[in-house]
Amino acid sequence: MIAEIISVGDELLTGQVINSNGTWLAGELHKAGIDTRKITVVSDKAGEITGAMLEAESKSDLVIVTGGLGPTNDDNTRQAICDFLNTCLVENTCVLDNIRLLFEKRGMEVTETNRKQALIPKSCRVIQNQYGTAPGLMFERNNKLFFALPGVPFEFKPMVTNEIIPLLKKHIKNNFIVHKTILTHGIGESFLADKISDWEGELPSNIKLSYLSSPCIVRLRLSGKGKDQKHVKKDIDKLVKKLKMVIPDYVFGEDNDTMQSVVGELLKKREASVSVAESCTGGMISHLITSVGGASQYYTGGIIAYDNDIKINCLKVDRSLIKKHGAVSKHVAESMAIGVKKYMQTDYAIATTGIAGPEGGTPDKPVGLVWIAVAKNDNVVSKKYIFGNNRERNILIGSITALNMLRKEIMD
Amino acid sequence: MIAEIISVGDELLTGQVINSNGTWLAGELHKAGIDTRKITVVSDKAGEITGAMLEAESKSDLVIVTGGLGPTNDDNTRQAICDFLNTCLVENTCVLDNIRLLFEKRGMEVTETNRKQALIPKSCRVIQNQYGTAPGLMFERNNKLFFALPGVPFEFKPMVTNEIIPLLKKHIKNNFIVHKTILTHGIGESFLADKISDWEGELPSNIKLSYLSSPCIVRLRLSGKGKDQKHVKKDIDKLVKKLKMVIPDYVFGEDNDTMQSVVGELLKKREASVSVAESCTGGMISHLITSVGGASQYYTGGIIAYDNDIKINCLKVDRSLIKKHGAVSKHVAESMAIGVKKYMQTDYAIATTGIAGPEGGTPDKPVGLVWIAVAKNDNVVSKKYIFGNNRERNILIGSITALNMLRKEIMD
Repeated sequence: MIAEIISVGDELLTGQVINSNGTWLAGELHKAGIDTRKITVVSDKAGEITGAMLEAESKSDLVIVTGGLGPTNDDNTRQAICDFLNTCLVENTCVLDNIRLLFEKRGMEVTETNRKQALIPKSCRVIQNQYGTAPGLMFERNNKLFFALPGVPFEFKPMVTNEIIPLLKKHIKNNFIVHKTILTHGIGESFLADKISDWEGELPSNIKLSYLSSPCIVRLRLSGKGKDQKHVKKDIDKLVKKLKMVIPDYVFGEDNDTMQSVVGELLKKREASVSVAESCTGGMISHLITSVGGASQYYTGGIIAYDNDIKINCLKVDRSLIKKHGAVSKHVAESMAIGVKKYMQTDYAIATTGIAGPEGGTPDKPVGLVWIAVAKNDNVVSKKYIFGNNRERNILIGSITALNMLRKEIMD
Repeated sequence: MIAEIISVGDELLTGQVINSNGTWLAGELHKAGIDTRKITVVSDKAGEITGAMLEAESKSDLVIVTGGLGPTNDDNTRQAICDFLNTCLVENTCVLDNIRLLFEKRGMEVTETNRKQALIPKSCRVIQNQYGTAPGLMFERNNKLFFALPGVPFEFKPMVTNEIIPLLKKHIKNNFIVHKTILTHGIGESFLADKISDWEGELPSNIKLSYLSSPCIVRLRLSGKGKDQKHVKKDIDKLVKKLKMVIPDYVFGEDNDTMQSVVGELLKKREASVSVAESCTGGMISHLITSVGGASQYYTGGIIAYDNDIKINCLKVDRSLIKKHGAVSKHVAESMAIGVKKYMQTDYAIATTGIAGPEGGTPDKPVGLVWIAVAKNDNVVSKKYIFGNNRERNILIGSITALNMLRKEIMD
């Protein structure tokens, strides 16, 4: 079964909104063993939607349209389906009841605008929306399966997970794919490619390698196909084991791990706690750590010491140290880490001080310079990094790099 | 001039990586007055890339391919262009020199893998890459203009801004579009639509309205076309003025504003400072504030009091208050705000305490419950919110809502 995704919305073609639904849906289909041939973004115009559906129908078995089912005047997917199927809109009582129920829960009357959402193309089956007013739609034509789903992620995702995927799984038999992703930090894509070229050269033809780069992290994904699922899985496991021996210093996780989830797991295992003192990263390290559910088991708290007085008063950094070496220095980073560790009484502490940019750089201390320190027991280690010119990137890379330093110290 | 964007990469079709390049590029083209008809994501296979190029050529004037120009084996865009143009790859000395220069800067020898990137399709013009080794490519066929650009955002974006857009602007004359976006917070899309329906009904036919929803923010974008740019601009300004009178409580910014940039500007204007005490938002408020360049002018610092002991020791929240009302309560939120304001000696302070989830909810205090407090002068105000079940969303919405409360207090 080959799928095609059509995402609808002018806002997706003008740079205002990113097509995260399309990516997420392709991922869910992929996990279910369905390859996506193409993701197409088209405008709100009914004609464009119909055109894309015709094109997709000619090449794929499954077509999923997302967006354009809302209550406002720029939502034309229902009309496009009517044009495509040569049918008309009729009011669906089940959908209207669901809309009434949702409004009742919120203690409100159904508005005329929302009532319009109960009008659906005559020959479509309805998929109820548990979290909103726009129903999902389903129909078949020329032996191809079509879905139209609401674009609001909060409504769209549960509908895919709870309704569409189980439905599709019934259609698919003997079709599978095995994935394994290895996460690396601290080495660029082309250097990684050179380091693992011998290993890559020995990959069997049914197992494919992809390089996926994001700021300071490169993911290596192996995708294997074959008749015997267990056999492919075993082959991939062997390859992963070999790969880890080739680049042991860079691998930090697998599959859906993140640097913060890996660090969290390590701290939980050791029943250890951590605190954070952030200057240039401005709360990002704490945010990353606490984005993991259950972080309260190991994350005690943090101090964002943007102003030097906070470094001095809260973190007990010696004023003379700042005067002598500057706030962005090895000494201050180390003193911040020691200070927050003591203050919050944790087993580990991280500290950052640097120049995120775009302003504030000097020839001696350019934008992108970051000192990171990690304190543990009675010891503190620190390292100097020079990242780039982009504030957002410096904050993110600085934060991930700091978490990696903590990871290495925990494992040491 | 109508554009079509083709984004290349298996990783974009398997849910691993989101097509942010496509969205960003469409936005840049849009600003330059070029409409994007379609964004298509295709796999790494040379055949799929060629197929998409043929399809785009038949309907658009400008085709931009992104990705697949890297040094690794899954990068096939150069081969696809050769197939499309019926030509072959030749080593380009300018490109090779650029690669050598980049490697020299990093104190390294050119690797064989990277040398491959100097091989380009014979009839293409080269666009130098200032930040990486993969050059951009340009060619014409059947009076249509083609570009192929590297997929790494850090290399791709400057190439678009510095080379492609100026080049395209020369092609376009008498073609323009005027945009204005109004940002609202605190009201859902369909309610907003009802509230402004009279105003919307009076829009002239050359001015289009779009609703763009993101967590707890709805953007209203007006796009106007016409022969007289000044005239359209004036019409839009009038409409915006009227709109603001219809929904004064919800509008907080315009165009590229963010809640944090609006709050930052207000604080700068009043020469006031702010500090933050975060529990459930875990650093996100501080991160949002410090994501704005120059935040050190008004952001003093923050305390992330995840553990109750930090609330008591650092923020001087009375232990008995926590015992009596619980950590997630009006009293504790207010006490946290007062505590951090005093500790950091700022003019304003924000505090949050809540249950982000997925664990930790009770019938009395469900997941999604957040208390937000804002302290100013000798006063403190607080409000209770109940968001949803999603941790990530609760953290983000809680943070934006807290910043909005601060915004309203500053303007009061």
